[in-house]
Amino acid sequence: MTIRYPNGKKYVPVRTSKSQKLKNPSFSNRGKSLEDELNESNDYYLSRGIAVIHKKPVPVQVVKVSYPARSAARITEAYFGTPSTTDYNGVWKGIYVDFEAKETKIKTSFPLNNIKEHQIQHMQNVTNAGGFAFLIIKFTTLERYFIVPFEMVERKWDRMKAGGRKSITLLEFENTSVEVQPGYIPRLDYLNAVETLMKLYDDKIER
Amino acid sequence: MTIRYPNGKKYVPVRTSKSQKLKNPSFSNRGKSLEDELNESNDYYLSRGIAVIHKKPVPVQVVKVSYPARSAARITEAYFGTPSTTDYNGVWKGIYVDFEAKETKIKTSFPLNNIKEHQIQHMQNVTNAGGFAFLIIKFTTLERYFIVPFEMVERKWDRMKAGGRKSITLLEFENTSVEVQPGYIPRLDYLNAVETLMKLYDDKIER
Repeated sequence: MTIRYPNGKKYVPVRTSKSQKLKNPSFSNRGKSLEDELNESNDYYLSRGIAVIHKKPVPVQVVKVSYPARSAARITEAYFGTPSTTDYNGVWKGIYVDFEAKETKIKTSFPLNNIKEHQIQHMQNVTNAGGFAFLIIKFTTLERYFIVPFEMVERKWDRMKAGGRKSITLLEFENTSVEVQPGYIPRLDYLNAVETLMKLYDDKIER
Repeated sequence: MTIRYPNGKKYVPVRTSKSQKLKNPSFSNRGKSLEDELNESNDYYLSRGIAVIHKKPVPVQVVKVSYPARSAARITEAYFGTPSTTDYNGVWKGIYVDFEAKETKIKTSFPLNNIKEHQIQHMQNVTNAGGFAFLIIKFTTLERYFIVPFEMVERKWDRMKAGGRKSITLLEFENTSVEVQPGYIPRLDYLNAVETLMKLYDDKIER
């Protein structure tokens, strides 16, 4: 049976499925992925002249394109490529910033297999070239966000490679990262947290 | 008739068509686009730990994907998007660098309609955020390469918008840019030219 509103529109029940409920635990964050939240925040930074930070497009290897008359070129065969970098980079106060954003539904730790070897390598390169690399980890179920220095993740990565733990505990994030409280505008003022992080951890800003 | 080498491989004549001849005027540069030359140079910079600079992927809006059994996901419908930035960015000696690379076959000037409004806007934003924006212009027929400060292009762009010339002359490049001689490894040592340019033009490096 289809239920309709008086205006004829179909009634679409909200939060019927369990998975949707789990994905969007609170009203404020309903339906927003970390990517959406970061894109919004980056739009805000750009519009205020605070920073120029963009998400990189996913690399796509285009094989076939058709050109229908009077229409836009249409790609009819293509494949996803493998990125050689992190997803986000840009400039803020003359500093090159570079980061990867990751979500986990787990409540007590973040599995390191969410991060790829090439991303670790890239962030090492960035650090060596004088940029500032970090990660944004969102615990979706807890709705908690951490700005994590790359050095900390690298240490845990090396420990894992040597046969150690395959994850970083929530407690470790609480002790070594800066937590961001989500807001309205901007949704995530992560650069404010990065500033705090740099003061705590990094001497690279003293150029 | 198919001509074959003794090893059975087909004989493929080199430089038969006129267009190929025009496109690749010299042996050293045969078949290489400016993009290839820059990618090679960036690979060199990365491998030597000099800089981390990548070309951004072309944005593609994916509509349909099929998942054939035992094969990689295949995109069957997608469209080219519009980039909101320049093509290249990265970090070198702690400096955020951002540039657009353009080729022209014209021998005496570079038409400004090769540059898009959103690219000018992006380079203004980058400059304001403390990054270093520039352009690499290749006169393909002359095989000459210029590293051009964004400020110069911006000035010419504003002049065009006010009804002035729609191009930048070769002489203007010779007077206000740094020319790069193509080499072998790296193909284009453009960062060396950027360093010279910064010394000549820019006080932003004095942070």
